[in-house]
Parts: sequence; structure tokens; C-alpha cells
Amino acid sequence: MSDLAAKMRAIVGDANVITDDFAAYANDWRKKYFGKPLLVVKPGTAAEVAAVVKLCAETKTSIVPQAGNTGLVGGGVPDESGTEVIISVARMNKVLEVDTINNTMTVEAGCILQTLQETAAEHDRLFPLSLAAEGSCRIGGNISTNAGGVQVLRYGNTRELVMGLQVVLPSGELWDGLRGLRKDNTGYDLKHLFIGAEGTLGIITAAVLKLFPAPRATQTAFIALESPQKALDLLSHMKGALGDRLTAFELISAFGLSLVTKYFPQLKSPLPGDYPWFVLTDIADSRDAAALTEEVEVALGVALEREIILDCAIAKNETEGKRMWELRENMTESQVHEGRSIKHDVSIPISKIAEFISAADAALEAAYPGVRIITFGHVGDGNLHYNIAHPLATHTEPNWVKEWEKVNLIVHDTTAKFNGSISAEHGIGQLKREEIKRYKAPLELAVMRQIKVALDPQNIMNPGKVI
Amino acid sequence: MSDLAAKMRAIVGDANVITDDFAAYANDWRKKYFGKPLLVVKPGTAAEVAAVVKLCAETKTSIVPQAGNTGLVGGGVPDESGTEVIISVARMNKVLEVDTINNTMTVEAGCILQTLQETAAEHDRLFPLSLAAEGSCRIGGNISTNAGGVQVLRYGNTRELVMGLQVVLPSGELWDGLRGLRKDNTGYDLKHLFIGAEGTLGIITAAVLKLFPAPRATQTAFIALESPQKALDLLSHMKGALGDRLTAFELISAFGLSLVTKYFPQLKSPLPGDYPWFVLTDIADSRDAAALTEEVEVALGVALEREIILDCAIAKNETEGKRMWELRENMTESQVHEGRSIKHDVSIPISKIAEFISAADAALEAAYPGVRIITFGHVGDGNLHYNIAHPLATHTEPNWVKEWEKVNLIVHDTTAKFNGSISAEHGIGQLKREEIKRYKAPLELAVMRQIKVALDPQNIMNPGKVI
Repeated sequence: MSDLAAKMRAIVGDANVITDDFAAYANDWRKKYFGKPLLVVKPGTAAEVAAVVKLCAETKTSIVPQAGNTGLVGGGVPDESGTEVIISVARMNKVLEVDTINNTMTVEAGCILQTLQETAAEHDRLFPLSLAAEGSCRIGGNISTNAGGVQVLRYGNTRELVMGLQVVLPSGELWDGLRGLRKDNTGYDLKHLFIGAEGTLGIITAAVLKLFPAPRATQTAFIALESPQKALDLLSHMKGALGDRLTAFELISAFGLSLVTKYFPQLKSPLPGDYPWFVLTDIADSRDAAALTEEVEVALGVALEREIILDCAIAKNETEGKRMWELRENMTESQVHEGRSIKHDVSIPISKIAEFISAADAALEAAYPGVRIITFGHVGDGNLHYNIAHPLATHTEPNWVKEWEKVNLIVHDTTAKFNGSISAEHGIGQLKREEIKRYKAPLELAVMRQIKVALDPQNIMNPGKVI
Repeated sequence: MSDLAAKMRAIVGDANVITDDFAAYANDWRKKYFGKPLLVVKPGTAAEVAAVVKLCAETKTSIVPQAGNTGLVGGGVPDESGTEVIISVARMNKVLEVDTINNTMTVEAGCILQTLQETAAEHDRLFPLSLAAEGSCRIGGNISTNAGGVQVLRYGNTRELVMGLQVVLPSGELWDGLRGLRKDNTGYDLKHLFIGAEGTLGIITAAVLKLFPAPRATQTAFIALESPQKALDLLSHMKGALGDRLTAFELISAFGLSLVTKYFPQLKSPLPGDYPWFVLTDIADSRDAAALTEEVEVALGVALEREIILDCAIAKNETEGKRMWELRENMTESQVHEGRSIKHDVSIPISKIAEFISAADAALEAAYPGVRIITFGHVGDGNLHYNIAHPLATHTEPNWVKEWEKVNLIVHDTTAKFNGSISAEHGIGQLKREEIKRYKAPLELAVMRQIKVALDPQNIMNPGKVI
């Protein structure tokens, strides 16, 4: 046992330093990155995290912070050098306080997202962050990646849900910014530096999160449309008619939907006709369900009349609504069955989405005739998961994967043309660290680096990620 | 004429360098700070700002960025050395783009807030930032101070309304972050560093701002209550019943209201009975006015029944609503007539407001028997303007002002006890730069300084402010 491991054990206890079986920590969820850590350390308190980081700082040992390890860009995976220490906050999973008057909860970084949703619900409140990995992702990771999900339209990204943070800095000092204040203009807002920094500036150990009144009723609708442009027209119409009660607005292409119904035959389209595009939407409110349904019916009736939409199905109850969502939730899985597709997580100013889809579709078709595009995503936020399956006539799945970088280049160059982002909600991590240099101004990268150097002069905090 | 002035004229034109008549620029609006600049330079474009800052960087000349010069903490006023150059963005007042589908507008930093509200309204959208100085303050200043105002409850602070920024850095380099993206996780979120930095990290030259659906109806109500605790109970009740339609929730003490009706006899309380506390609230919605009024009546009816409130007046129309708001808007002015009061701008976790008021009231009464406290503010955000008028028996207005620091100390120490902030929405500037050291952890101040040094190593950008 190394001297470092012994010192770590003295801080966190023998059982919480792992020196051999790294399987649960060394690889990412998508099995794209396989790292080799020196140790995995699992502190139980913020003070222990601080002591562990201090030891790393003294010994110039690189740190990889980790929470639920469900990230999609390799941000929580160590390199292969066998010299990096993973600090896992998974044991720090206590809800420290729920304040229903201030509408906040103070939680440790290792809390599982679903637990926090449930805690809020137990207090008749909503914690609106919701995403596919919610059963296993942990809030410290959600904050470090500024996670998005399906309710950003109404409630914002994770960034907007964080009111205060507690962070261990690369020096091992503990910054206590666990404030529950809606207004505080006393200098630079440091918490925003750590949110979305993917663990490169410090380790988040606890947070004060915003709670919302629990909606009394949610109405789901599944809508058929002619084109992405009509989806944007519908978005404007619905926002005008229903204000911010619109909580989700997802675009689904016919091809994307057809893969779901092909591989999950128990799932049926609520609108089985031959339509090219669909929108799945949720509208939530503090009013009673009947009144809400009536308003949604009126709004969609007007949309039909004005020929913004072709048809629509309004869920009669929660079960029907859930079934509609199962179509959306199985889109990623269905693509696995069809053969690995080349994935993107882009965002575009909402007004340019239809143009972007046309331009990107055309560029891909020119490069790969017969290419099959699965277009879906959080259109209400301008966020598309634009995934590209191989053309059947010219490619097979194994040789399609070799086109990954070339396809990325076409899609991301088109994204840049429309002033979009090549990583809307997944982050940079290792996956896009080189690529981002093509799209971000050198000045912006230089300022990011200045900040990194100022806070982490030894470059021990998640080196090789983001910048 | 100095060499520097000549070079500035070559950049911005002769008419836009002021070398003598500094009256409109050198002093703050409250007439607390009287500075002496070397020059006032008024660039017309971001490129001109960049060239001017570059020249200052080369000559190590200190810069004071200025927009509408309506700040309340001396953040936009130069020192008395006669060596600082004011860079005013007032001429840069163009709305560059309104995108009603993306719900954004791109504007130059010198745009007057009210113009932006009107521009949004012309496009059937809402730009919700609203505060007393809106007729003369400029958006660059609003962003640099992260301005608050009366609609934070529903729409957030200025920070939450900014999607992208263009900033001239202390080096004179121009960072173009004018993005209109709701999701963009590609590294550190630099815009949040500049928002609320009071011009110490760079000069904001343009911004992409968020727009919202224009509400179709607003219902104002004036409510009498027994105590601040009951106001918190009402806030919870209203949030549960009306969700995020609650856009303003202001507490007013009976003494505060009595000063308004004393000095503005044309203004009458809608509830003339003998009540100790009042709440003024707005509820806005995309629905029609009649339906909204009915919902508000039901919610307040329940509050009466449950004895949360003592009485209420629901405005019958817009004019009545406006009259209710005139009471609130004249609170500051009425205090001037009564004799200068010692002002505070504190925020507290909402759940602790009632306890804070009791504790601060008691501490002040112990120190100054008969002290008269004007308690009002944006209670929905936890923000109180807690102003202290002299006790009639022992003090006069002139000798009361001498107690300023002692009174500040009592109020701010009490604020700190409840984990509050001593500057909720006005910032630090010069006014609270020393005081903040008492309340902020040395580590947090050290990190702020690290960032300042990283971005402005010569310390030329608004030196002597914030940190």
C-alpha cells in the first residue's frame, strides 16, 4: 500500500479507500472511456473532502471528482496513467434541510436526483430537474455539468435551480456559499463559476436548491405537424395562449418515432396516420385538471383551425400521458437496436431551428446519399439530439462508426453557422475538448484558461477536461 | 489638451471627449460621491470602446465605466485624483435585433431600460426588469449591478434575464459572447462573471436579453395583515393557489404607509382601517382578466377564512391598481419629507424575515428608544428596504445622520445572524467596499481577488470598487 493510500485511509477510514477493484469508477457509463486510477477515495463529509484535496495539493496528485458517474463526455473518468485519484462524493447523500417557506432544500453533493425529486414531493413542492439518468445520477454531477433535461423550457437548466454552493477549492480550502438568498449583490457570483465547470475548478460538496410549488395538474398532448417550422409556430402560439404553463415541448421526427414502434411493438403512436413530424408537450398548472384540459383543448383547437398543426391527441388521464412519454423515452434505446447512430447534442437559437435542420439534412445527404436522420429533442429550448444512422445502401453499422468525426464536422460546422452550441447539455469533458477549439474564439478560451490558472495553479483538479 | 485626450479624440471624434464640464458624469445621483475625472470619453461602437480601453491599458490609465449613472453605491463615480477616465456607453443605444420566435432582443449597453420595455411591448412581449430609475438607467448599468426591482419574484434578477454578452476586457480585447442560446455547456460561463461585477472586470457593450410572453391581464390587490409572519403565510398560500402567476409581493408597514398618505394627501389607503401591516401584490397571466380576478378573489377569500389576512381590496381596474402602486412608489420620497432616514437594502432567507424584523426592531429600540422604523420591500424575494428614521424625543435629523454607521452595524449584524446579505440589489461600489469585509469570508474575498488579478492584472478597470 502506498504512502498516499495510508494517509487517505487516515482521513476517510480504511473502508473508504479503494486500491484495486475500480470497475464502478474507472469507466464511463457509455463505455467509451476506460481509465486507470491510482485510488478511489470516498469521503463522508465536506471536511474530509477538504482534507483529501489538501493532501493531493501537497503531493501534486491529480484529482478526478466523481458523483453518479453517468456523464456522457468522459468528464468523470481518470486518464490511463494510474496516477489520478478519484474522489467520489457518493457517500455524502444527506438532505440537510428542507425549507418550504423559503422554497429551498440544502443537500449534499452525493444525493441521487430522484431522491431529491421525491423529497420535494413529500413536502408538496417540485424540484423540476428531470432527465433519463435520474435514478442513478447525483446532484453534484448534475450541477458540475449544468444538466438540462425535459423541463428546462419552464424551469431553466440546473444553473437556474442552484441558489448556493459549498465547494472544496483546489487548495483544499472549503468555501461555504450555502446561501438561500434570492438576491445577493455582494461581489462576483462565484457559484456560477463552479456550475458547469465539470469539476475543473473545485469539488462541489453541497448545494442550496430552489423548490417550486407542486403543479396540481399536468396535461400531456401528442401533436402531428407538417414541418419543424410549424413546430416553431406552434411553440409561439402555445406560449402566447398558455404562458409559462408550458413545461415541455419535444420534437420527434416520423423516422425517429417509427424506430420506437418497430422495436417496442407494445408502444403505439397516439396518431397512427402518416405524418412527417410530431410534438410531445406538457402543460402544468396550479389549477384543477378539468380547467387546464379545457384551456389546452381551446389552444390546440385554434392551432388546428389556423393549420399550424395537422392533428392532435390530448391525454385523457395520467396513464395516457405516461404512454405518450414512453415513446420519447425509448428513442435512444430504439436507435441502439437499429445500429449505432452518430449522435449530437446541439443547440440553436429557436428561431433558426427549422433552417438548421434543412441545412444539416442537405449537407449530410450530399455527403452520404440515403443517410437516415433521427431528429428529436427539446425544441422549446433550442436543443436538438440530431442523430445520424448509416445509409443502408452504402454503409454497415461497423464501417459507419468510422465516419464519426466527418459526420460530427458536418453537423457542428452547420451548428456554428447558425450561432449554435456543439454541446447544449452534455458538456465538454474529454469528448469535445479538442473539438471546441474549432468553434470557440481563442480569446474566450484564453479567459477560461486564465481563470483555471488563477484557481488551480498546480492544475490538479480534473486535468485534461474542458480546457 | 493632453496627449491622451488628443488620442481619444482620434478614436471617438472631437465632440465625444469631454475635458471640462463633468457635472453630468462626476457625481452620483444621490449626491453622495463627488469625483474628479481626467476625461469623459463617449465611444459610439464596441470597437471604439475596445480602442479606448486599449489606449488606457497601454498608458496604465484607470477607467470608470458608466451607463445611466443612477447607481446607489458610487460604483460609477471616479475618485478625486483627476487621473481616471470615465468611459460612458450612453451613446451606444441601439436595439440591434428583436427575435420574437427565440424570445430575445439584442441591445447595446447604452439603451435606456424604459425604451427596452417599450420595444418588447411593441412586439407583444414582456421585458420584465422594472425599477424606479427605469426612465434614465441604462441596461449596461443594470447588468453590471445585477439590478433587481419589483418583478424578481416571477422573472428573476437581471442576471436571469441575460442570455449573452459582449464585453471589452481590461486588455482592450473584445469578447463576443452575444449568444441567444438557452442551453450551452461548452466551458465556463463567462457572462456570469461580468454580470454584477460593477465594471471591475470589463465594460459591457451589448447584451442578448430574454423576452417573455406579454401577460394579458394583471390583477393588483392591497391586503391588510397582523404581522410579517402572516405575510409569509400569505405568500405560501398564494404561491400554492396561483403558482408563478404571482409577479410582485411587497410588504408595507403601517408607519411607512402613514408617511405616504401624510405627504401625498391625494393618495388614500384602499383599506383605511387601523391595520399594522400591508401587502401589495400583482398577479399576472396569459388568461383573460375576468377569469384571473375570479381566481384571485377565491384565493384571498380562503386567506380571509383561514385568518391569514385581516382585509383586502382587489383593484377593479387598471387605474385602481395603479393607484395602489403609487402608495408603494412614493415611499422613498415621503421619507425625504419626514427627515433623512438611514437606509438598508438587505435580504434574508424568506422563512426568516419575520424573525429578522423582530430581532432588528428590538436591537434598534434598545439602542435608540423611540426609533421609527420604515419596513417595506420585496418580501417575495426576501429583500427588505429597512429604513430607520430618528427618534423624535432624542434626535433631530442632522444629528441622526451621524448615527449612520452605528445603525448600519446593528442592522447588518442582525442580517448576518440570519445568513442574509447586506446588499440585496444595490451592489457594493464604493459605499460598502470596506463594510463587506466584516461579513464575507476571507476565502471568498481572496477568490474574488484572484479572479480580478487574472482578468485585470494592471488594476485599471474601475479600481477601488467592489474589491
